[in-house]
Amino acid sequence: MRIYPGISIVTLGVADVRRASLFYQRLGWRMSVAASNAAISFFTLNAIVLALFGREALAADSGLPAIRGDASPGAFSGVTLAQNHPSEIAVRQAMDDALSAGASELVPPSATSWGGYHAVFADPDGHVWELAYNPFFALSADGGVELPD
Amino acid sequence: MRIYPGISIVTLGVADVRRASLFYQRLGWRMSVAASNAAISFFTLNAIVLALFGREALAADSGLPAIRGDASPGAFSGVTLAQNHPSEIAVRQAMDDALSAGASELVPPSATSWGGYHAVFADPDGHVWELAYNPFFALSADGGVELPD
Repeated sequence: MRIYPGISIVTLGVADVRRASLFYQRLGWRMSVAASNAAISFFTLNAIVLALFGREALAADSGLPAIRGDASPGAFSGVTLAQNHPSEIAVRQAMDDALSAGASELVPPSATSWGGYHAVFADPDGHVWELAYNPFFALSADGGVELPD
Repeated sequence: MRIYPGISIVTLGVADVRRASLFYQRLGWRMSVAASNAAISFFTLNAIVLALFGREALAADSGLPAIRGDASPGAFSGVTLAQNHPSEIAVRQAMDDALSAGASELVPPSATSWGGYHAVFADPDGHVWELAYNPFFALSADGGVELPD
């Protein structure tokens, strides 16, 4: 188990851990109360863990002495998180749920240039989530993408 | 399957897809040749997929009309990816592999304030990876963290 091909935890730097945690709880996602505290919260996802942590604390923890760049919600972080869905209707339903929970719409449900279908939202801190239907990717029941070799 | 608790794909915006792909291949990670092309590459991880995509293309795809903020490798994106390991020595070995592949050290292998052990590196585009040993989290064979309720 040197540097194995895997991610255990995706951590999002957020302005207010409580506010961000409430957003993800409104999606119906289960927060681990035992593992979480005021400074950081953890959610069990399909196979990895999503963590929400103060953005400045996350920078410091990562050896970055100060926050450089634009930390406003409108700024692009350079990272997107996608959850794939089995159909266009499933994408639209998921987007409805996200918007109801307080997400901001970045791209309404629409066809993509590559022959799929997607919708994109930002969470309250501007982290980008894509909801995608990709007819070319096999999808497991828990949202895992099975790539060809 | 409305907005289920899961991530299918983590996409990193990169300056040069070929350069970034070579870095992850040097880690020994398997790129899906069939799914990848010059504009985007895909790697099968433990349960989700890592994608590398041009940073500007990713911004445009996400409905963000222009890149705001600092896109330099030294800037903090607000997102970290962690892979957990079963021991301190495993963290050190993984960090050696990352540095050998061309990563930049952000935090050398060291004890953390919360009683664990970690090392942090940046990939060639500045995306932050933490290698962590957390004695309080159960870890599955493929790097999955099993949170308590």
